[in-house]
Amino acid sequence: MTNTAYTPIHASTHLNRTGQGRHFLQIPGPSNTPDRVLRAIDFPTIDHRGPEFGRLGLRILEAIKPVFGTSNPVIIYPGSGTGAWEAAMVNTLSPADKVLMVETGQFATQWKNLAQKLQLVPEFIPGDWRTGVDPADIEARLGKDSHHEIKAVCVVHNETSTGVTSDIAAIRAAIDAAKHPALLMVDTISGIGSIEYKHDEWGVDVTIAGSQKGLMLPPGLGFNAVSDKAIGASKHAKLPNAYWRWDEIIAANRNGFWPTTPATNLLYGLAEALDMLHEEGLRNVYARHQRHAEATRRAVQSWGLEILCANPQQFSPVLTAVVMPKKADGTHYNADDFRKLVLEKYNMSLGTGWPSCKAGCSESGIWDTLTT
Amino acid sequence: MTNTAYTPIHASTHLNRTGQGRHFLQIPGPSNTPDRVLRAIDFPTIDHRGPEFGRLGLRILEAIKPVFGTSNPVIIYPGSGTGAWEAAMVNTLSPADKVLMVETGQFATQWKNLAQKLQLVPEFIPGDWRTGVDPADIEARLGKDSHHEIKAVCVVHNETSTGVTSDIAAIRAAIDAAKHPALLMVDTISGIGSIEYKHDEWGVDVTIAGSQKGLMLPPGLGFNAVSDKAIGASKHAKLPNAYWRWDEIIAANRNGFWPTTPATNLLYGLAEALDMLHEEGLRNVYARHQRHAEATRRAVQSWGLEILCANPQQFSPVLTAVVMPKKADGTHYNADDFRKLVLEKYNMSLGTGWPSCKAGCSESGIWDTLTT
Amino acid sequence: MTNTAYTPIHASTHLNRTGQGRHFLQIPGPSNTPDRVLRAIDFPTIDHRGPEFGRLGLRILEAIKPVFGTSNPVIIYPGSGTGAWEAAMVNTLSPADKVLMVETGQFATQWKNLAQKLQLVPEFIPGDWRTGVDPADIEARLGKDSHHEIKAVCVVHNETSTGVTSDIAAIRAAIDAAKHPALLMVDTISGIGSIEYKHDEWGVDVTIAGSQKGLMLPPGLGFNAVSDKAIGASKHAKLPNAYWRWDEIIAANRNGFWPTTPATNLLYGLAEALDMLHEEGLRNVYARHQRHAEATRRAVQSWGLEILCANPQQFSPVLTAVVMPKKADGTHYNADDFRKLVLEKYNMSLGTGWPSCKAGCSESGIWDTLTT
Amino acid sequence: MTNTAYTPIHASTHLNRTGQGRHFLQIPGPSNTPDRVLRAIDFPTIDHRGPEFGRLGLRILEAIKPVFGTSNPVIIYPGSGTGAWEAAMVNTLSPADKVLMVETGQFATQWKNLAQKLQLVPEFIPGDWRTGVDPADIEARLGKDSHHEIKAVCVVHNETSTGVTSDIAAIRAAIDAAKHPALLMVDTISGIGSIEYKHDEWGVDVTIAGSQKGLMLPPGLGFNAVSDKAIGASKHAKLPNAYWRWDEIIAANRNGFWPTTPATNLLYGLAEALDMLHEEGLRNVYARHQRHAEATRRAVQSWGLEILCANPQQFSPVLTAVVMPKKADGTHYNADDFRKLVLEKYNMSLGTGWPSCKAGCSESGIWDTLTT
Repeated sequence: MTNTAYTPIHASTHLNRTGQGRHFLQIPGPSNTPDRVLRAIDFPTIDHRGPEFGRLGLRILEAIKPVFGTSNPVIIYPGSGTGAWEAAMVNTLSPADKVLMVETGQFATQWKNLAQKLQLVPEFIPGDWRTGVDPADIEARLGKDSHHEIKAVCVVHNETSTGVTSDIAAIRAAIDAAKHPALLMVDTISGIGSIEYKHDEWGVDVTIAGSQKGLMLPPGLGFNAVSDKAIGASKHAKLPNAYWRWDEIIAANRNGFWPTTPATNLLYGLAEALDMLHEEGLRNVYARHQRHAEATRRAVQSWGLEILCANPQQFSPVLTAVVMPKKADGTHYNADDFRKLVLEKYNMSLGTGWPSCKAGCSESGIWDTLTT
Repeated sequence: MTNTAYTPIHASTHLNRTGQGRHFLQIPGPSNTPDRVLRAIDFPTIDHRGPEFGRLGLRILEAIKPVFGTSNPVIIYPGSGTGAWEAAMVNTLSPADKVLMVETGQFATQWKNLAQKLQLVPEFIPGDWRTGVDPADIEARLGKDSHHEIKAVCVVHNETSTGVTSDIAAIRAAIDAAKHPALLMVDTISGIGSIEYKHDEWGVDVTIAGSQKGLMLPPGLGFNAVSDKAIGASKHAKLPNAYWRWDEIIAANRNGFWPTTPATNLLYGLAEALDMLHEEGLRNVYARHQRHAEATRRAVQSWGLEILCANPQQFSPVLTAVVMPKKADGTHYNADDFRKLVLEKYNMSLGTGWPSCKAGCSESGIWDTLTT
Repeated sequence: MTNTAYTPIHASTHLNRTGQGRHFLQIPGPSNTPDRVLRAIDFPTIDHRGPEFGRLGLRILEAIKPVFGTSNPVIIYPGSGTGAWEAAMVNTLSPADKVLMVETGQFATQWKNLAQKLQLVPEFIPGDWRTGVDPADIEARLGKDSHHEIKAVCVVHNETSTGVTSDIAAIRAAIDAAKHPALLMVDTISGIGSIEYKHDEWGVDVTIAGSQKGLMLPPGLGFNAVSDKAIGASKHAKLPNAYWRWDEIIAANRNGFWPTTPATNLLYGLAEALDMLHEEGLRNVYARHQRHAEATRRAVQSWGLEILCANPQQFSPVLTAVVMPKKADGTHYNADDFRKLVLEKYNMSLGTGWPSCKAGCSESGIWDTLTT
Repeated sequence: MTNTAYTPIHASTHLNRTGQGRHFLQIPGPSNTPDRVLRAIDFPTIDHRGPEFGRLGLRILEAIKPVFGTSNPVIIYPGSGTGAWEAAMVNTLSPADKVLMVETGQFATQWKNLAQKLQLVPEFIPGDWRTGVDPADIEARLGKDSHHEIKAVCVVHNETSTGVTSDIAAIRAAIDAAKHPALLMVDTISGIGSIEYKHDEWGVDVTIAGSQKGLMLPPGLGFNAVSDKAIGASKHAKLPNAYWRWDEIIAANRNGFWPTTPATNLLYGLAEALDMLHEEGLRNVYARHQRHAEATRRAVQSWGLEILCANPQQFSPVLTAVVMPKKADGTHYNADDFRKLVLEKYNMSLGTGWPSCKAGCSESGIWDTLTT
């Protein structure tokens, strides 16, 4: 009665053939997961209502705070970074609320699209995909919003599609200069754990992050760090929401638990990743990324290639996007062809370029190299 | 410059101390994850935009269909079962829509609460927590809904808090008998992979499932199986939604990919779990659960204890809830005290009873034993 | 050009089928390997000549000493317990040397046979397989050996085939009382890490151990703890030997290395196992085994079965051998039939009985239950 | 009562620190163990006397034969390659037997030293550490041995210390041309699984191998492939031996078992490694090594460095030894300094050079790069 018609998938055979050797994963996330983290998620799942889980939960929830630079709660979801974007918005906003967003690249654009799907009304300050957010733009726009119709300013800290960072403290200063009450929401999905981040000091209201980049985990966890102001807003927000609801999670987290079933094995991995970050020391981790990014840029420049990020002050210490060179006929080499060749010949995965790139490379795309 | 102030969590030390021996996890999920599945999720994360991932994705999406008894798409989310509940509703319904739900136990109640948070209007047919859904109740209620204000009937297939199953085919027949167009949504979070399930044949519109029970994975994946009618409804539904949106996932899944970052390593585990289920043969898997459940019930009865499920036709083949016995003074022994003793003395975790249990055991609670 | 004729073994499929559930390994070794130890041996192999290995080697070689109760070197081989027996003898003895051994059971017998294969001349004091070594026998025999032809006394500390221990300190006292210079060699393969052991205090010259029982590792490592007197003897012994040679290993171990390629990944597991033993505290570990063994014996007795070990002073705290009961016709039930039934019906492996058992159970065999 | 004085080793912390990134292991073995093999050895240890083990054992013992090019038994020991050298000799030879060996490099020298420790009388044909065995030397020497005092010719197939191979078929032809009955023993520890090997066709009597190179396992298993003639010799050989005894292993292997405790978890890894080799196809594996070795040599030559192997016909397809360049003063750069720098700056381990190298690089050493 066993199933003879079924051909097993045998995932491990797909994932590790002889002759392939070791894969070089150089995409802008998921990044390479350390062996310790992989082994940690391989432990048997325990009772998420039992005392051992509670002890582990409390340790994780405490150890993650310095990574976000906060002493407020950090909320952890089973979900992806996209889910964490949604969580930030549905907890704090109401249908038809205006949000001010900035077109720094593909992910800022996707977040803007998500806001629209959630029935918010994003205003999207256009950008060239080669520079970060200009705080002056924010201040100017908010200055005109005398009725405070804009409920949130949403910016990407480290734009994964371009390798460009934005200065979050300066954006907060711009909001304050405009004396505007809008919430500040920051996506640092590809920055967290790699670039110094100061949720409290920078006055961020909701910080959005994911597990699969600087936190060195497989994908599957989303994060929201929240200010008291954001928590206050969540009490009056009218967008329907249940799964992402902060209040119940924050309450249960006080004892190290979650109100619904958490992704236990990914939390094991998070505990191990936090140990690794704190063992090395966060300052050392950030300095290492700066050093590797500088080495990457020097290599790119020595090959005569152009770095997409136009402003050296905004170079990402996490990933470097490179403009495909031009052929003799003036058109760009095709980035997909290049990545395919690199994968097949050298067993190395490079990040995808984006056809919507506005930086003069729209047909050729760009490629990203995550520095880890 | 390393961080000397930090005390490492050392998750593995927490999870596996000497002297503890092997833990017996007998809760109603997460269930015991097989060694093969744990080892599978321990493989390095690959590029979720690369060709190897696409091949793996296609195999998984195909192999999972017979487990749900469908030839339609099965949508897989990074998220929990609660997220999959939300996904089912936000894709198909509009604010203030009426939904008909039935109080079979704790999880039916939580789902009803979730519907309220999503600004739906659930009508909750009261239940005694010892019996399943009565199709006649559904037919009677729908028969009165001449304006078709009820947009969905939402029932739990295998109520995790009580060990009571409901007859989904009979519920579909009741809806049809009432000639009512409501969607049929079924939560089989703790049934899928353990009890035979026929999404297509039973005429279910949205089936909701999670990874951490019969699919033998750690928690972290949610599932929606969808009928053509449900997909049709999703095109007009007005609840704001983005993360859970079916259309983009179904489109990307055609090539084995996801529109946003999937939980790659849990998908490795899913591939392995699907191999295991199909190796044994689904019929054999279901028969095994029936046999183990019968053995469990006989043991419970031979100890002179009462099974919570009042109707032998509705006995769950997955888990058995047992009423705490009474003391001489007529009150029930306390279930939490009992579980604590079992954990500390025998290193065995039993499932939580629910204080809201209406079955005359509200003060004592119940305990669940997942049969795996 | 790939090999289509080959049917893959897929070891993981063999080792973990659905429907099998979790195996209960209750044999007298290999014992159940903790998850932490298994995950440790899963780390990538490193350069066994590099500095990281040296640091790890030094830590392991130091942390293992208290487990043997010695401040002298403990030598670790890639090999099994049988190899460690051979190592003890070829390092210290010369062809045709007499050795005094005692028939406590199957493993004492196998060790005696090994001595013969090595061209030594064992004298085997007969035993009944139900009691340990009688020190008076040793003293009496050595007292007659006025020419000191006997070069070593070789005894088994915890006889794996019978669940009977012998009193090593009393045996040393007997040798001393006889004023005899013979080396004392002790096999504690199934005792180490489970029963308190005092190599130095008891005056043992060579202690033989293996990885796969109380040290909680998979099989593949053999151990010799050595006294100064044994090291002295090794300088004049004439049995040919190379692989097992202590001197080169002891010299290289001073810096944490081995002269030839060590079993790196099993050493990772050993590091983890030593952490586990020391975390719990060796005293607590030993007390736990005593408690579990007492519980096992009480269960056996309450079933009306007979414990093979005839002397309660010599009960093993590690494993309990049980005499198969008699049928109505006076013959014993067959142990192999019993074990087969237990394996097939309950997925539990019990230890093998030995046909050569002299304890009146020779036709029925015995079965062992390792207490872990 | 827990042990507060003990500082845990935490092997995983040593083996995988943040900031270290991924280690590049380019030593001539242990080679990089594939993820599949590591995960395989992480499965729980099973009863090595039970039916599942027997089935697995039979499959392994069959699947390994084509790797050695034999239809005769391949004997697998818990032990290292050094142990397998010893096994080959103690099974077939008697004290004071003469053996003819050839100084092809460090490992040939170590094997010769081992023969001496075993009380054999090796005659060592001198070599320059840059060329392989000259079959004419063998034929000439055996031709003079009219009394057939030489009992075995022992050569290294792929000399790990020099990257030089020897032509085994030609050596067999030389022995036959001399009409000499000596056994032919071949060490292919670093060749097996990487270079085509034909135990039967080449007329080898004992082939010696280890697990940690082309078989892609961690160290801990040794191998002997044996001819009928070698088995015949083992019946009359007089060197004392027990652990390494072929006859008992061959007998037990017929049912997939071992007479003493096998290294179960490394055998799981072997099953997986054999699957990988056969999936790719042995011909493809060998061709891949040839291609990578040629690429390595071209890189070395393009850097203006000298390959140690003097005869292109004898280039190893597994590893390439490179002579350290000379400084202005005519002395060689120091290889240890170089390796230390490569390790500290680039996290890459290169193989050790040997101070005893006779090839003009004795003070500087050489470095090896395993091609995998």
